[in-house]
Amino acid sequence: MSKVATTYLEVHPWLVIEKGYHEERTLVSESIFSLANEYQGVRGFFDEGGNIPTLRGTYFNGVYEYAKEDTPISYKGIIKRTHFMINSVDYLKTMIKINGQILDLKSSTVNNFIRELDLRSGLLTREFDWIINNNLSVKIRFERFLSMNDCTRAFQRITIIPTSSCQCDFKLSLDSNVIHWGKDCYWNGLTNYQNDDVIGIMNETLTTKQRLLSLMKVDINKGTNKKIEFSDMRVDLECAVNLNANEELVITRYVSNIVEKDPSIDIDSIFNKGLKDVLESFILGFEKQLDSNIKYWDNIWNKSDIEIVGDDLNQQGIRYCIFQLEQTYHGYSSTNNIGAKGLTGEAYSGHAFWDTETYCLPYYLFNNLEAAKNLLMYRYNTLPQARLRAKELDCDGACYPIATLNGYEACNLWQHASLQIQPTTAVAYAIYHYVNFTKDVDFLLKYGLEMLLEISKFLLSRGQWNPSHTHFSYYCVMGPDEFQMMVNHNTYTNYMAKRTFDYTLELISKYKDTKECQRALRLTKTDDKMLESYKNASEKMYILYNEKTKLFEQHDGYFDLPHIDIKTIPVTDFPLYSHWSYDRIYRNDIIKQPDVLMFLFLYNQSFSLDIKKANYEFYEPRCIHESSLSPSIHSILASELGKDEEALKFFGFSTRMDLDDYNRNTNEGLHLTSIFAAWVTIVYGFGGLRSDGEILTLNPRLPSIWEKYSFNITYQGAKLKFLIYKEGVEVINQTKIPIKLKIYNKEYEIVDNLNLKGEL
Amino acid sequence: MSKVATTYLEVHPWLVIEKGYHEERTLVSESIFSLANEYQGVRGFFDEGGNIPTLRGTYFNGVYEYAKEDTPISYKGIIKRTHFMINSVDYLKTMIKINGQILDLKSSTVNNFIRELDLRSGLLTREFDWIINNNLSVKIRFERFLSMNDCTRAFQRITIIPTSSCQCDFKLSLDSNVIHWGKDCYWNGLTNYQNDDVIGIMNETLTTKQRLLSLMKVDINKGTNKKIEFSDMRVDLECAVNLNANEELVITRYVSNIVEKDPSIDIDSIFNKGLKDVLESFILGFEKQLDSNIKYWDNIWNKSDIEIVGDDLNQQGIRYCIFQLEQTYHGYSSTNNIGAKGLTGEAYSGHAFWDTETYCLPYYLFNNLEAAKNLLMYRYNTLPQARLRAKELDCDGACYPIATLNGYEACNLWQHASLQIQPTTAVAYAIYHYVNFTKDVDFLLKYGLEMLLEISKFLLSRGQWNPSHTHFSYYCVMGPDEFQMMVNHNTYTNYMAKRTFDYTLELISKYKDTKECQRALRLTKTDDKMLESYKNASEKMYILYNEKTKLFEQHDGYFDLPHIDIKTIPVTDFPLYSHWSYDRIYRNDIIKQPDVLMFLFLYNQSFSLDIKKANYEFYEPRCIHESSLSPSIHSILASELGKDEEALKFFGFSTRMDLDDYNRNTNEGLHLTSIFAAWVTIVYGFGGLRSDGEILTLNPRLPSIWEKYSFNITYQGAKLKFLIYKEGVEVINQTKIPIKLKIYNKEYEIVDNLNLKGEL
Repeated sequence: MSKVATTYLEVHPWLVIEKGYHEERTLVSESIFSLANEYQGVRGFFDEGGNIPTLRGTYFNGVYEYAKEDTPISYKGIIKRTHFMINSVDYLKTMIKINGQILDLKSSTVNNFIRELDLRSGLLTREFDWIINNNLSVKIRFERFLSMNDCTRAFQRITIIPTSSCQCDFKLSLDSNVIHWGKDCYWNGLTNYQNDDVIGIMNETLTTKQRLLSLMKVDINKGTNKKIEFSDMRVDLECAVNLNANEELVITRYVSNIVEKDPSIDIDSIFNKGLKDVLESFILGFEKQLDSNIKYWDNIWNKSDIEIVGDDLNQQGIRYCIFQLEQTYHGYSSTNNIGAKGLTGEAYSGHAFWDTETYCLPYYLFNNLEAAKNLLMYRYNTLPQARLRAKELDCDGACYPIATLNGYEACNLWQHASLQIQPTTAVAYAIYHYVNFTKDVDFLLKYGLEMLLEISKFLLSRGQWNPSHTHFSYYCVMGPDEFQMMVNHNTYTNYMAKRTFDYTLELISKYKDTKECQRALRLTKTDDKMLESYKNASEKMYILYNEKTKLFEQHDGYFDLPHIDIKTIPVTDFPLYSHWSYDRIYRNDIIKQPDVLMFLFLYNQSFSLDIKKANYEFYEPRCIHESSLSPSIHSILASELGKDEEALKFFGFSTRMDLDDYNRNTNEGLHLTSIFAAWVTIVYGFGGLRSDGEILTLNPRLPSIWEKYSFNITYQGAKLKFLIYKEGVEVINQTKIPIKLKIYNKEYEIVDNLNLKGEL
Repeated sequence: MSKVATTYLEVHPWLVIEKGYHEERTLVSESIFSLANEYQGVRGFFDEGGNIPTLRGTYFNGVYEYAKEDTPISYKGIIKRTHFMINSVDYLKTMIKINGQILDLKSSTVNNFIRELDLRSGLLTREFDWIINNNLSVKIRFERFLSMNDCTRAFQRITIIPTSSCQCDFKLSLDSNVIHWGKDCYWNGLTNYQNDDVIGIMNETLTTKQRLLSLMKVDINKGTNKKIEFSDMRVDLECAVNLNANEELVITRYVSNIVEKDPSIDIDSIFNKGLKDVLESFILGFEKQLDSNIKYWDNIWNKSDIEIVGDDLNQQGIRYCIFQLEQTYHGYSSTNNIGAKGLTGEAYSGHAFWDTETYCLPYYLFNNLEAAKNLLMYRYNTLPQARLRAKELDCDGACYPIATLNGYEACNLWQHASLQIQPTTAVAYAIYHYVNFTKDVDFLLKYGLEMLLEISKFLLSRGQWNPSHTHFSYYCVMGPDEFQMMVNHNTYTNYMAKRTFDYTLELISKYKDTKECQRALRLTKTDDKMLESYKNASEKMYILYNEKTKLFEQHDGYFDLPHIDIKTIPVTDFPLYSHWSYDRIYRNDIIKQPDVLMFLFLYNQSFSLDIKKANYEFYEPRCIHESSLSPSIHSILASELGKDEEALKFFGFSTRMDLDDYNRNTNEGLHLTSIFAAWVTIVYGFGGLRSDGEILTLNPRLPSIWEKYSFNITYQGAKLKFLIYKEGVEVINQTKIPIKLKIYNKEYEIVDNLNLKGEL
């Protein structure tokens, strides 16, 4: 890992600030200054566009299209067409002309450029002085935000103040002629709208027939000439106004974007909904709704803030991370999930991966249980698709996709889609994790059990017995480590499957007399013989473990693979995917991301420290972290093993991966799931929190570079704040609910405040 | 293997006859009645076309194009674009109109339809009576052949005899507006030609810029009105004539097709060549050139015939096979190779595979040494491409493509192109086989050694040492058995590599003092250290062999794979590629084609009978023969093991795979390389011939269904005929050269005739 920061933003505890326009970083800044509210997201592009590199991306959660071409190689089980989140209506499009000159930061002269994202409100501001000539300069301020409470609503405010009188023309557009992946437009025009100063367009996706109504009402603090023009999938509002010296022109645009995925809803209903929404927004006004946002964020920070003293970079970094997590997903709808790049770009197609269950869920477990549950409900709601996928793979039960928006497999690389079983075991793990944590038996019986039974059925049918019937295992799989493509007896896969069988059987045995359990057994056509099969499979699950060395072998034959000392690989060879021949990547013991270490993390409390130590020390030197999710797991285990320096090294850039563009591809969008990993690394890593056992445990450590830090969690209804100082640990229970915790292996009941001095 | 014959052709020792038009088999017949002369091939389509399913395919060896689209997934080592042999000028296009009615076998009423291919001349005749009305019927005969001696030349003769007077219009065209794969035309028009009754068109491939001039001169035995019309890439000659009752109209078309692959040749030279050729052909006439063909074939049958008494089906079948082998390749040029479907269709893209070295070469070794050498020279001439391919795979030396026309890899399935090493070891084996057989030291020193050294270099760089450096092996490979995709220690690969190293080292040690050897070492930058590395690699080559069971394990972990009894797989599941999910094919012990048995066949004399027996009995029940090349190897080994019934079962349909359309896909073209396998099965299988040792050995057996059979080979200049009767074996040396042979493990010197009675 030889990653270098590109620092061009100011450091501030609550703001992300760009001083002076960094043209060469335009696309990176667009990603960093992205806004979202789970329902919709918009990249931080310039309202006025310009002759600069840009990805004017506006995305709506779950609004997607299918590829125009079939996958060329189509054996059974290989998906025919992929689908992806598509670029949607550009509702911030703005043209500003002063005395006939068009504003374009490529050619216009500007001074005092400053762009600011306020993490306490979600307001993005951009301001500069546009020097038209010696006698005329114009102060221009753009502001925008998305409502966190009324998620259909977007706001744009433009303030223009000239130093001397001038003619100002401007045009505000709604435009669905947007291209995706620099190539195709996936929208069809349906109809337009104009009434009482509200104008809008309604468009439809080409094949998935999802409709999007975009309405706007514009408020201008001064009378102007107005002209409205409709063209294909677009409407322009053109205005002209004369401004006096120092006169302030304020243009406020209220936008309402209504997504309608249900084709049975008639157009009028959509219009009525949108019209009501945009008028309500207009009446409430910009400021009041910004205030609502501030309240929203105040609540979030109160509940979820992480404070780091003595490290301003990570302080800003982790707050930026939490801000983006909340923007991307907070449980608004169980039809949404979390794309690898959130709603900030087109790379990874907006797809949700197993990252959701393994990296994102813990954040919501401790901060927003409704969101956590909705993530599980997303998988429940897509059970029918998972059942079909299992059939496509000649299996039974339910197989969850490696990448998806709509529940169907979207990954057209068969080696991943057909060989990686971890999305399915991750769903089982997530149910276990959630239920263990929340004791939400209602969810378990209504939904969880059915999922677990379908998953077990899949796992039984995909697994196989060896010829002498002495062990059950998975053949031809790819584990989490994608540098070993097609192997047998991958220990991660086998272990996760075993635990899934065990958990399912445990629940059945516990709840078999309930009518919900009987219903789940009936729905999934599970009989005693099948349960017996699960038991056999689990008991005889082939786990490659060596008692003497305490090592798990990643898969059959891994220890015999040719060894490469990764320190000898030239830096210019990375990423290996781009520089090594495809097959070469697979034929040695280099691993891309944790595999054995991954299940040691997930089922952390099931393994002794010396097992973790042995495996960490064996696998860590073989891992090149060509997944941005990899360092966090290493950091967490290093913390646990007392390898503080290593833990810090792996924590390294995680909070600032995007702010400092460590991976050189933030231009494509934010690394959303890595942002989750940053939170996990602090709370599970340095905080030493473990949530996979019966009781919550913590083993907090203070990284040497920090003076102190604190984090908050909500657990069993109690709001707990943990403060970790050099001198000790303080736990503040901000509610009246007494909470049992284990800290440094000692059990405490925390009623209001616990102070452990000198324990660190 | 549950294959069923579709018999619709007459059985005859020298003719392939279709009596009555079988419309539902139109495409199959087109393939079966294909003509070729290595330079060009033409499917047996109807000259007059018609509203019937048809693939009007005309192919020229080595005339190819690149795909219009890149391979979508393009990691390093995955080829960017594939290339393929393309459909070319339609020079038989004919329209016949009698009294205004167009001949079209879909709608025209015909009687006495008969189509005949004569294996003694290569003449294809089609004849029928066309019933126009109660008073008029017209006998029509189409004849065509390709010159075996002057391979640019094609001939068409149409004879028309009406029962009463009528008006006859006809049109003969040359047309390059031909589509490939039912989609695209890969030709661009260049220029036309018309002079002295010779007309023609010259066209060029879109990107590879290969030119094809097609000229024709038409001879009509009666004066007619003529009209010549040129349009884009096409010329039509239209004629009109009145015929009296029983008057015979004979139209003879002389075609010359000149392929020019060298872009530096000017257009005039190509025209001059073509003009000279077509005029010479015209002057010689149809009959004389047909006579030349008869002489050509007479020589072939004299040299290579296989006679089977007591089995008319196989008699016809094997002669048809030999006929098609000779048509497809006889060593005319070392830039040609043998496509899996020869020049008879577009499936498999005309690509040459490792089949050339493993299945086709033996035929030429015993029948046409020049052709055998040219096949090797093809690989020598494409060494530069093989060197580039090795580099693309991050290796050294030369890696031969799995599928190619021009020497570059054309297979865009990376799992085959990057993981299958057998094309490269097959080239090394072919050099060994050829040199061992011919003692052609000149070839060896001038070409073979350089190839072997480059191949060894590749094998060293692709192989790897295990971490404890105790063995050398190949990781992440696919052996010949394509149902095990990505495995380690594949015994076939390892054994073939070991033998390649050994043979190379043996030759270097033998010839190191020659200047040719020194030159080869210099050219390939081979030093003593590298030779030492080859020695080490060979000595420590990991060969999974169990002394006790005498079994080779196909690859690491194969014996532990879940077992499937292939007899329990429903017939409707075959072919598995189309009915099983892609990953499922790979995760069990089913094999697609011989892997261990393959090297036991290739290096047959290096293994004891009990090793062959043990492995045959283990692997045979696990093989589903989803490659048409598979049964022959099983038949040969079964013969050797005295399992005569099994040998016969596997020989089964091999001579008639296409005549009886066993695989249900002869419509796409003939299974050319399987046709070679039929020859191999008789000569190596029943004949028990072995050519991989120091001395030629034979162990002939008489299949129970045959009365007797004979085959011919040419060996060390001697023409030998082997006759196998119930009573014994007779060997006739038809030359004066005394030949040493081992028959039934006894050495003989055969001067004229050897008669072994009662030995069978």
